[in-house]
Amino acid sequence: MNIDINCDMGESFGRYTLGQDEDLITRVTSVNIACGFHAGDPLVMDKTVKMALEHGVAVGAHPAYPDLQGFGRRTLDMTAEEIESFTLYQVAALAGFLQAAGTELTHVKPHGALYNFAAKNREAARAIARGVARFSKSVILVGLAGSLMQEAASEAGLRSANEGFPERGYNPDGSLMSRKLPGAIIHSPQEAAAQALRLVNEGVRIDSGEMQASFPVDTLCIHGDSPNALAVSQAIHDALINAGIQIKPIQ
Amino acid sequence: MNIDINCDMGESFGRYTLGQDEDLITRVTSVNIACGFHAGDPLVMDKTVKMALEHGVAVGAHPAYPDLQGFGRRTLDMTAEEIESFTLYQVAALAGFLQAAGTELTHVKPHGALYNFAAKNREAARAIARGVARFSKSVILVGLAGSLMQEAASEAGLRSANEGFPERGYNPDGSLMSRKLPGAIIHSPQEAAAQALRLVNEGVRIDSGEMQASFPVDTLCIHGDSPNALAVSQAIHDALINAGIQIKPIQ
Amino acid sequence: MNIDINCDMGESFGRYTLGQDEDLITRVTSVNIACGFHAGDPLVMDKTVKMALEHGVAVGAHPAYPDLQGFGRRTLDMTAEEIESFTLYQVAALAGFLQAAGTELTHVKPHGALYNFAAKNREAARAIARGVARFSKSVILVGLAGSLMQEAASEAGLRSANEGFPERGYNPDGSLMSRKLPGAIIHSPQEAAAQALRLVNEGVRIDSGEMQASFPVDTLCIHGDSPNALAVSQAIHDALINAGIQIKPIQ
Amino acid sequence: MNIDINCDMGESFGRYTLGQDEDLITRVTSVNIACGFHAGDPLVMDKTVKMALEHGVAVGAHPAYPDLQGFGRRTLDMTAEEIESFTLYQVAALAGFLQAAGTELTHVKPHGALYNFAAKNREAARAIARGVARFSKSVILVGLAGSLMQEAASEAGLRSANEGFPERGYNPDGSLMSRKLPGAIIHSPQEAAAQALRLVNEGVRIDSGEMQASFPVDTLCIHGDSPNALAVSQAIHDALINAGIQIKPIQ
Repeated sequence: MNIDINCDMGESFGRYTLGQDEDLITRVTSVNIACGFHAGDPLVMDKTVKMALEHGVAVGAHPAYPDLQGFGRRTLDMTAEEIESFTLYQVAALAGFLQAAGTELTHVKPHGALYNFAAKNREAARAIARGVARFSKSVILVGLAGSLMQEAASEAGLRSANEGFPERGYNPDGSLMSRKLPGAIIHSPQEAAAQALRLVNEGVRIDSGEMQASFPVDTLCIHGDSPNALAVSQAIHDALINAGIQIKPIQ
Repeated sequence: MNIDINCDMGESFGRYTLGQDEDLITRVTSVNIACGFHAGDPLVMDKTVKMALEHGVAVGAHPAYPDLQGFGRRTLDMTAEEIESFTLYQVAALAGFLQAAGTELTHVKPHGALYNFAAKNREAARAIARGVARFSKSVILVGLAGSLMQEAASEAGLRSANEGFPERGYNPDGSLMSRKLPGAIIHSPQEAAAQALRLVNEGVRIDSGEMQASFPVDTLCIHGDSPNALAVSQAIHDALINAGIQIKPIQ
Repeated sequence: MNIDINCDMGESFGRYTLGQDEDLITRVTSVNIACGFHAGDPLVMDKTVKMALEHGVAVGAHPAYPDLQGFGRRTLDMTAEEIESFTLYQVAALAGFLQAAGTELTHVKPHGALYNFAAKNREAARAIARGVARFSKSVILVGLAGSLMQEAASEAGLRSANEGFPERGYNPDGSLMSRKLPGAIIHSPQEAAAQALRLVNEGVRIDSGEMQASFPVDTLCIHGDSPNALAVSQAIHDALINAGIQIKPIQ
Repeated sequence: MNIDINCDMGESFGRYTLGQDEDLITRVTSVNIACGFHAGDPLVMDKTVKMALEHGVAVGAHPAYPDLQGFGRRTLDMTAEEIESFTLYQVAALAGFLQAAGTELTHVKPHGALYNFAAKNREAARAIARGVARFSKSVILVGLAGSLMQEAASEAGLRSANEGFPERGYNPDGSLMSRKLPGAIIHSPQEAAAQALRLVNEGVRIDSGEMQASFPVDTLCIHGDSPNALAVSQAIHDALINAGIQIKPIQ
């Protein structure tokens, strides 16, 4: 068995520093780099891409709603046409820094509120997928396991990857608990590691009343912006290795 | 003899409409499309690229200082490193919409204050050229005729094109008169047409006291945002055709 | 009988011009000036306040979601705390230009998506009212006739004014039709004038199935950004005068 | 003898946290709060004003160039008219949060590049002073000791305060060394404390070749965003107290 571990990176902006990118880059096999709309700026993107390539991880774009002050965590009522072109813009901008290094984008993972909205909204999921597919059909679209994102990727001719969250509480329908609710963030390294193992072994279980299903997970997201991010990532890493699971990028 | 005619386009933003793109597109052989930093947004870029490709004109990126409120017309004291990565970002973002259509960027022309600053500042000119060259060495860098931009392009391994302005007043040193001064904008279609002919036939003459020189012009810029833009562009077009000059894109 | 006529103004931004403020200012008794978040910038605000005061109209603030690219017309999922402080910020900023002229703000009217969201969302309506009341309890809060805004204003110790829209289609529940739907905008001067008279004479009628009610209207909004804004405003003005209705600001 | 100690505060933005406001607030007698243009947002301003008032310090506005990505540290070539209205806007917005608490602004201190530019540029200094004076003539304008800001304040009918920087290297002409140069920031608590004492006792000495002069200092700025900000502020505080100097707000 094998699994990818990904982390959002490049979320600093101008004078503002966020995350522990230099440390976490050694614990992951792929990174999702902010594209300047919820976080990041061209200088941060340039440096983050260089750092990621030096560490040999797979590099993806992390497009978001245009909402720097809200860090892309507030749903914005954009049209499908807007989502499509905003996705294409951000993906292309990030890919430019990879092209400058003679390499290519491996994946796209939408950020925050856009990610969660598209998980349940078919029109948004399709708009994102179209934006990515117009840029390149070789790119993998990463979305919440068991969500509408996988269907939309497939319709657009894209491969998709199912993502699981060791550090986030889940609702019974497979969506992530709102960050405003208690239990939304799992702070304990042990609990996060246990959830990581469960996600890899059993996938995400969805029980919506009428329907029970389980969706396998291709990639685990670890958070870089919590104070104990390093301890959590280490615990997850160790638990997976001890269980004989191989950590390597999605293909 | 032949000459390219270019025009800045895609400078609308959200609810705000600027320029007469649909009309002017028929009078030019290449367009420079705003990249979202001084004007334009992803939706405007998407539509403008599609329109330009339908008309078969050469499409370039029009990167600028990040200054929407100032329309990129105010110099901002950025470092060379910032200018380089901001240029690369904007060029790549615009190129994404071309890639989506199966085609490629032909040129890059910096906008407004960045254009004028780089014409006389070697460090800025080099930073722009590096940003473009990192994206692709096949792209032509368009700069003020006789300015430092041409040198910087050459150093970076890029081809360059010399630009002349039929509708702008020139200073004796070959720089453009500040828009704040009387005479900076030539409103008369006849005068603009006469200056267009002069630029094509004689180039830009520079007399800096110690040095007299003349620089040939590869492309003429016409303005799309003045009330009489259509009359001016028609007069320039007619004058060139009548003088037996062929209007076609730079290669 | 008397009625106020208001118009949104100061919605230009930097190089971008919007609306026909100079013409419409003569047809209205109060104006709502954009505060820089969906439109307007400090220079535009400064000039618009001066112009409004020269014409002796009542001046209000027109706060919005922070969404320039979407012109404040897209709902953004802000917390109540954010809405409150963003409202207070914008109201205070606009009021500064009035204070500079030795006068005061008469009213606040939220813009676009914030206006429509607060009409039906009690938490948002209360957040706006708190933001305004913290600034000053002398300010009138303008909201959709028959909506939750009036209740929220009253709770916060503010006077409120009921607004009606001669140029907009209404849903049966008294909300405005979405701008995405046909019939949302009434373009005909005659129809708009007829609706203006109806709104003044009969108020806004609400039929939600269980409940029928009619809400009197204190102020009519005319739109400044449509091509025939002047013809529409003239027709409304004439219809009201001919019907013996006095046009004067809300107190 | 007495001296004010001031610190810039409220420079967090959305998800981004900057500075150690809660700790430093206990070491200062006045604070300059960011107004959303180089840092800060309405929510941050609201909370920072409340915290400052709880601690009984004097509260001022800290207006800046509109440059969030550059943290207001890059000169932007704005017109005097723009600087004036941008200053008035920011001052009024911040003052709104004070008015909400039943109190008033004591001072205005421009930020970063605007501060440094106005120190030597009469037109910019006058534009700032006009923006402040239009808002209120009771506000104190804080500027670099011995700079053009004091003259501009006086012309505009404002009181001014001379500021000194214990943690910054000075050029012989009394301007601050560029942050790009070595020696621009004094990191040692002892050296900063010694410079603080020197500034209070001797003022800022200016030697421009033709002219030697010394300008008394009314307020000392301590930096909140360096890692050892607390140690530096403590050392300065202790040195002043030990020298019998009373620390209290400017009047």
